[in-house]
Amino acid sequence: MDSKSQTEILNAVDDLFDAETQFLSELTSHPSTRGREQSAQDFMASELTQRGYKVDRWQIDVDDIRHLPGFSPVIGNYEDAVNVVGTHRSATRNGRSLILNGHIDVVPEGPLDMWDTPPYDPRVDDGWMYGRGAGDMKAGLASNLFALDALRRCGFAPAADVFFQSVVEEECTGNGALACLQRGYTAEAALIPEPFAESLITAQVGVLWFQLHLKGLPTHVAYAGSGSNGIEAAIPLLAALHEMEDRWNADDAKHPDYAHVHHPLNLNVGKIQGGDWASSVPAWSVLDLRMGLYPGQSIPEAKAEIEAVVMEAARASDFLRNNLPEIVYHGFEAEGYALSEDSSTTAQQAIGTLESAHTAVTGTALDRGPTTATTDARFFGLYADTPALVYGPRAEAIHGFNERVDLDSVRRVTQTTALFIADWCGLETV
Amino acid sequence: MDSKSQTEILNAVDDLFDAETQFLSELTSHPSTRGREQSAQDFMASELTQRGYKVDRWQIDVDDIRHLPGFSPVIGNYEDAVNVVGTHRSATRNGRSLILNGHIDVVPEGPLDMWDTPPYDPRVDDGWMYGRGAGDMKAGLASNLFALDALRRCGFAPAADVFFQSVVEEECTGNGALACLQRGYTAEAALIPEPFAESLITAQVGVLWFQLHLKGLPTHVAYAGSGSNGIEAAIPLLAALHEMEDRWNADDAKHPDYAHVHHPLNLNVGKIQGGDWASSVPAWSVLDLRMGLYPGQSIPEAKAEIEAVVMEAARASDFLRNNLPEIVYHGFEAEGYALSEDSSTTAQQAIGTLESAHTAVTGTALDRGPTTATTDARFFGLYADTPALVYGPRAEAIHGFNERVDLDSVRRVTQTTALFIADWCGLETV
Repeated sequence: MDSKSQTEILNAVDDLFDAETQFLSELTSHPSTRGREQSAQDFMASELTQRGYKVDRWQIDVDDIRHLPGFSPVIGNYEDAVNVVGTHRSATRNGRSLILNGHIDVVPEGPLDMWDTPPYDPRVDDGWMYGRGAGDMKAGLASNLFALDALRRCGFAPAADVFFQSVVEEECTGNGALACLQRGYTAEAALIPEPFAESLITAQVGVLWFQLHLKGLPTHVAYAGSGSNGIEAAIPLLAALHEMEDRWNADDAKHPDYAHVHHPLNLNVGKIQGGDWASSVPAWSVLDLRMGLYPGQSIPEAKAEIEAVVMEAARASDFLRNNLPEIVYHGFEAEGYALSEDSSTTAQQAIGTLESAHTAVTGTALDRGPTTATTDARFFGLYADTPALVYGPRAEAIHGFNERVDLDSVRRVTQTTALFIADWCGLETV
Repeated sequence: MDSKSQTEILNAVDDLFDAETQFLSELTSHPSTRGREQSAQDFMASELTQRGYKVDRWQIDVDDIRHLPGFSPVIGNYEDAVNVVGTHRSATRNGRSLILNGHIDVVPEGPLDMWDTPPYDPRVDDGWMYGRGAGDMKAGLASNLFALDALRRCGFAPAADVFFQSVVEEECTGNGALACLQRGYTAEAALIPEPFAESLITAQVGVLWFQLHLKGLPTHVAYAGSGSNGIEAAIPLLAALHEMEDRWNADDAKHPDYAHVHHPLNLNVGKIQGGDWASSVPAWSVLDLRMGLYPGQSIPEAKAEIEAVVMEAARASDFLRNNLPEIVYHGFEAEGYALSEDSSTTAQQAIGTLESAHTAVTGTALDRGPTTATTDARFFGLYADTPALVYGPRAEAIHGFNERVDLDSVRRVTQTTALFIADWCGLETV
């Protein structure tokens, strides 16, 4: 690409950035937690249609995907699980095809009183946009869309097919991205602008979600000694699971990509509910846990170890020995994925193309590193032989209160994305 | 009372016992958990009206009672909190007046799949009636009512005023019994047939309910190390509270009535809720706890010690030190009560009268002892100078699954109650 075109493209992103910020604000105002993604997907579909993309919008059918590798057990049902894909068909098809992927779902906002301002009433302050999902990852959806807009403003379109994906379920299963694969959407590379501060993710962990269902022996608290507390029963089990977590994080257990990461695999007790009455010894509790896995680590083996650890700890309790906990898997059964292990020419070219674009925009080399989170990249990388570049803006407090994204960073990522598309796909005139 | 009258009364209870069992079954079928007592109270009011008692039925007004000793902070509101009192006015008033008290509220039934048969579909098997509340304490309400019925069947009525009380809120505050006091219902003794296996309760513990509201520092679990888990934060606080519990249960700390009771004061973690998402470090949890107190133990001092223990444990955590837990009191602020400490003639006479009746029915001496639970007896004993006899049938699994009451025991308690009324109040002909 000549430097004049490059400058024009960067300027077009700048020219459109107020509109992009407005778009991001509107998208963030939709409270698209699991099961409530519809209005946000309506908005996305309408924006894609207005721009002339061919829009494919469908409800995920579990029967279409449950047999596929990478499928995770469904939580609830998929009555409201709708994916949106907008397709650009190139007239010339001279370049390499591309998937621009982002997820529309956000995690719950938690207690409202812990937010300084309402989570779905986005505001901009000192260069940051605040709101649930602003960073994770509606800014990425915005940058994907406005990178294409910027090319068009310059009179260009990608000289290859581009699939713009707005998927559900990234935060709990990944089945939204899997359903896109199943529906036939493939390309020579994928870009996922998850909020990792303009660095390229070289490896991501796997994630396993599981529930512990514990029983108690309920009695009137007057006879608490004859009962068994179904809430406190969790304490030794959690201690045993944290010991397992320590073993998995030991230096000699680490995957090479994580050799210098302090504690890559986190066990999280994310949710708990138990008991019905302060003066009754509780009969039950349910805990929702999340455990990280290394790339290449077997999910069946991880499950077997978790089960062994929980059951061994349970057998140390007189009561739990005869009332063993139940372990229920639903949600993430996500394998880890390492782009670093993809030695294909396509992967090297995609990374090189991204690095050139990043350097052209920022004047710096491209930082690279592993993440201790998962993303939908695994579907492209592991199950479709497609290198997936995870590269997006800087955000803070994702999954927390006062989540925010750095708008200057969003602008740079949009510019980098536009240059990447121009280089990877090539350009044709509109 | 002559032995012929006594035999007639005992036979009358036998004759009516099928009807009493039927009544108990119907009463147990009403799921009268907190806020849902209305249909059970409708049934009680209708049964009292049919029998010719003057029925007083009123919604508790918190403003009437909040200033009174023994008041406990309200959970929710009292829109559905209705007491029922049926009054027998004696024509002769030769005897001593009496309150027959029972509570209509039951504790939540918990997960239905842990019951062998549905909790509000009572059944009789091998001499036991099963159902939530069958023992605690609808059998007591039945025995109070049918003891009076048996006297009437013999052509008698009590020769003193008798107040039949069916109160709400026993299981969480006691404000139902308090509202009866405030409304002017007093008598020379009270009988409360709580299910303590035909023994007389000489002392009962106090109960304090409190909530721990814990905060966490939520982040994406990928960065769990930088967050602070608002669920697991509870673990060291519970450990510290259990140490306090051990101190309070030490031999030299015990109230004399509990000198030979192994562990009179139980701390119970009855309920917990926390977190919103398996992959988010949880920002919050709320635990509902119950702690027992000795008769005479000061509630303000108990609160101060609990607060000191919780805060000291919290200060040992880097995160909690700057985000101290909040302790919220709602529900029970119940003082302990010891009938054994009531040296009045009235108390001695009431106990003697009960013992005679018990022996006449069972042929055995009256067992006496302390309980590690609380009852509404404290309102009569502590705040109305009225000895309160807690004496009722044998039940099992109260507050648990498959709660059941021994129907032979219900029959004996009904007989003892009828003889007690006859002796305490005296008899007049209808």
